[in-house]
Amino acid sequence: MDDKKYFKNLTDRERAIFEGGISMGSLFHQFVGTPVNVDTCDSLEKAIEESILLQPAIVEVHVSLDKDMIKHASGSAGYTSLDGNMLNIELTTQINENTIVTCISYNEELDYPLMYIKE
Amino acid sequence: MDDKKYFKNLTDRERAIFEGGISMGSLFHQFVGTPVNVDTCDSLEKAIEESILLQPAIVEVHVSLDKDMIKHASGSAGYTSLDGNMLNIELTTQINENTIVTCISYNEELDYPLMYIKE
Amino acid sequence: MDDKKYFKNLTDRERAIFEGGISMGSLFHQFVGTPVNVDTCDSLEKAIEESILLQPAIVEVHVSLDKDMIKHASGSAGYTSLDGNMLNIELTTQINENTIVTCISYNEELDYPLMYIKE
Amino acid sequence: MDDKKYFKNLTDRERAIFEGGISMGSLFHQFVGTPVNVDTCDSLEKAIEESILLQPAIVEVHVSLDKDMIKHASGSAGYTSLDGNMLNIELTTQINENTIVTCISYNEELDYPLMYIKE
Repeated sequence: MDDKKYFKNLTDRERAIFEGGISMGSLFHQFVGTPVNVDTCDSLEKAIEESILLQPAIVEVHVSLDKDMIKHASGSAGYTSLDGNMLNIELTTQINENTIVTCISYNEELDYPLMYIKE
Repeated sequence: MDDKKYFKNLTDRERAIFEGGISMGSLFHQFVGTPVNVDTCDSLEKAIEESILLQPAIVEVHVSLDKDMIKHASGSAGYTSLDGNMLNIELTTQINENTIVTCISYNEELDYPLMYIKE
Repeated sequence: MDDKKYFKNLTDRERAIFEGGISMGSLFHQFVGTPVNVDTCDSLEKAIEESILLQPAIVEVHVSLDKDMIKHASGSAGYTSLDGNMLNIELTTQINENTIVTCISYNEELDYPLMYIKE
Repeated sequence: MDDKKYFKNLTDRERAIFEGGISMGSLFHQFVGTPVNVDTCDSLEKAIEESILLQPAIVEVHVSLDKDMIKHASGSAGYTSLDGNMLNIELTTQINENTIVTCISYNEELDYPLMYIKE
């Protein structure tokens, strides 16, 4: 992408952080609500990974849905809607030499899925 | 699902039509907006199929995204957002002996993606 | 809409049921996941109503989000993501003389949000 | 929110950039696909603004949908699906003394909706 001129006011590290935030917010709101059970986790994880890899600056994506939560939430209907609490995701953004790992996982203390930057 | 008592006011054919409509509306608004290019169509198609197969009364789903439209829309960024016009989908719902095939495809005359019941 | 020719294989009642199902599935998967708390319910309810009123055959929409559930789910962050269980919605579709009321509300027995046709 | 300890590896400016990216990605993928025409822009703009104002660090949101694009895209059906190109949004995030304005608008040169940080 020849869009570097639009990001002259950001350092490489800042832009890697920005793109990590965009992609994490994007996938959360794109895929939360999807019908899912333990048997369909594989295809949903793969679709999330491949779609988010297309976004700017993304070089790696690992998606692991929480099968225990999904099994527990799949009641009489045999499936549930994907919930933010079920997301365990790490995505890596890179701008030149700067690499940032952005994560989401359920945080027990806060009782919601926290998006953060890994050390 | 032991929910037949909630649908006593519908014939089997009517309920198959109802569930077909629900699932077609569901997948449209769940997946439109997903980042996609021609290389990621396979995983996205599979994820749509497996997730919609979980919904009530669905017995078969075929998803074929329009690769020509997707290629054409993938400009300088190398990908695009999934658009309703790109959807070619048939899903089959069954209630007892009644089977209904619900479709969506881009309709040139109307210039939008039409959802309809196949003969 | 001049699309009657595409629905010749449905009675008016069947098409009203079909459009009711489409719109209920649509709004569920469009709006589930939206950040919400008790103070923003009004604007979200209105946006859902006005957007769904645009869809084919819809003549009336009433949206009432479950404020108790939303308050209870809004923990340390002060808000939550809209969940399907929080939806209480009635939408009316009409094709000629045939009027159908499609509903969604949380069903305690099934423990999920049930979509159904009102008597 | 008492979550500062989770962001010790970010400066205030970096965290403001991160939260701006998250919220821009979130609203794009939450609301793209919503049925809309020129008459329903007001309620949709307000719902987007109020929902995004709930997210961490957001202190101001201005949403202006492109009415010309929406009118042009509303063909025989009288409405269209909200497209990323129709978004003109500025959102302000603040962490202590650091304020960041994150924007999205259609970029003619790139031919897609660009998310960027305003000077």
